[in-house]
Parts: sequence; C-alpha cells; structure tokens
Amino acid sequence: ARPRVGYFFTGKTGTELVSDKIKKLKVREYYSVPVVVNDQVSVYDAICSMFLEDVGTLFVVDKQSLLIGVLSRKDLLRASMGQQELHEIPVHIIMTRLPKIKYCEKDDLLIDASLKLIENQIDALPVIAKRESGLEVVGRLTKTNVTKAFVELVKSEEV
Amino acid sequence: ARPRVGYFFTGKTGTELVSDKIKKLKVREYYSVPVVVNDQVSVYDAICSMFLEDVGTLFVVDKQSLLIGVLSRKDLLRASMGQQELHEIPVHIIMTRLPKIKYCEKDDLLIDASLKLIENQIDALPVIAKRESGLEVVGRLTKTNVTKAFVELVKSEEV
Repeated sequence: ARPRVGYFFTGKTGTELVSDKIKKLKVREYYSVPVVVNDQVSVYDAICSMFLEDVGTLFVVDKQSLLIGVLSRKDLLRASMGQQELHEIPVHIIMTRLPKIKYCEKDDLLIDASLKLIENQIDALPVIAKRESGLEVVGRLTKTNVTKAFVELVKSEEV
Repeated sequence: ARPRVGYFFTGKTGTELVSDKIKKLKVREYYSVPVVVNDQVSVYDAICSMFLEDVGTLFVVDKQSLLIGVLSRKDLLRASMGQQELHEIPVHIIMTRLPKIKYCEKDDLLIDASLKLIENQIDALPVIAKRESGLEVVGRLTKTNVTKAFVELVKSEEV
C-alpha cells in the first residue's frame, strides 16, 4: 500500500483555532510598566503624575512597593470637581483599596485578564507578584494592551 | 477511479484563519451609543456629562448633530487643573477640532478602527455618517468595544 502523505484532519475547524491561538497569549507578553505613587502624596501631585506619565490609572503602594490602592482618571476627576484643596488631600482618602481591587499575574491568560476588565468595567489591572507580606506591583494591564493584542493577531500574519 | 471524498486542503493554516475571522468583524457590530455635547456648554457641565453618562470621551456637535470637536477625559482633567473658572469656559476652547479628529464609519473593519486607536493613542473614535453638510455622529468606538470583541472571539466558541 502507498504511504499516505499529506494533510491530516485534526478534528479542528478554523473556528476552534481562533480561540486556541488566543488562549496561548499570556499577560506577560502584553503588560506595560506600572506607574505608582506613595499613599501620602496629594491628589494634585497624583494628577500631575498621571499627565507626566500619560497613563489612565495609578497604583498606590507602600514603602515596600506593596499594593494598597488604585486611582483611576475618574477618581481624580471627581476629586478635582470638589471644592477641596487638591494640594492638601492625600490620595489614600480617594483611592479604591484592597480587597476591592481586581488584579492579575504575569502567567495569567490574557483572555482571563480581559474578562476581568470588561466584567468590572475598569481600564486597568495591576499585574502583581504574591509575596509573604502582600502584593508587589510589577506591571499594568490595560484595554490598550488588549487592543494591541487584537491588532497583532492580524498583523503577525501579514509578514 | 474512486471519487476522493473527505477533507480538502484549502491552502490555509490555522494561523491564517484567525485573521480571516477577525477581518469579518465590522464596526457596526461593536460600537456604542455616542455621548454628545453642544459647543457652547461649559467645561464644568461637560465634566458632569462625562460622569453621568460614564464615558471617557465626549463628542462636540453643532445644532445639526455634525461633529466639530472631541473632548477626552484628559482634556477635561487638564482644564480642571488650571486656575480658570470651569463654569465660564465653553468646551470649544479646549476641545480637539476637525481636521485633527480621527473617526470611522459603521462599515469599516473593526481591525482598521482598532489600528487607528492604537496608532493615534486615543481612547475612542466617533462613528460618523458622511452628509453633504459634514460628519454626522452616529456612534462611539472605544478600546472597551475592541476588548469585548477580543473576549467574544473566545466566548462564542464555548457555547
């Protein structure tokens, strides 16, 4: 009998292959550098950091770089609309704090982190590494990162 | 000769099929309702609209709903940091205006609109319909919409 060479049916359709490919993408390939502030800085200084670093979310950390809070552009805008003196309010007054913060780790699947962004209606997740003393902030995962991943799924095939 | 029935090699690998699937997605399947303000409203009122409607970008329109400007959360935050009276500054002073505005149409490919978001480092595109008199705002396409499309690529296959 002739040896059968050529293409084998894998039991997969084109449709299945899309999610197979996406499920290989990890947070570690797409995350950005985190921008952090200390919990004692003023709301005014936090807003300046957000502009200077050109990010939509700041993470608030203690002296060991452990996560204690998150500041969204919306949090800062709300505070700046108030009648208070922005130079005098420390960010820990207005931040979202643990255990309310959603986060992810480098080895998480990008699709799972994306789901957290959508389900919780937030712009960014801190990427953390678990330490005995708490959660160390090592990165930032945003909808921009996910949008880039989406674009690259197509771009990478056009080389 | 025996008729050859079974699977045919299409010349496509699994990798190609991912972009084939993505290239079928149109803006019209993913865009959101636009949130618009008149060009005479104050920066203060625009910030209130942004909170009430829970969006990151407002489109500024004239009396015929034609696009004349875009206001990002960043534009409003920058204005609110200034020493000016927010109730007295109209948004047309601080908005980004045509021809600087990037936009898309309902029948554009989602991947092309996504590329515009990434390349121009913006959060949202107005979805417009071309009229003789200008660009009518009919929707809003954001990185949230793209992130949802990314998530749905996987979710739709798990049914």
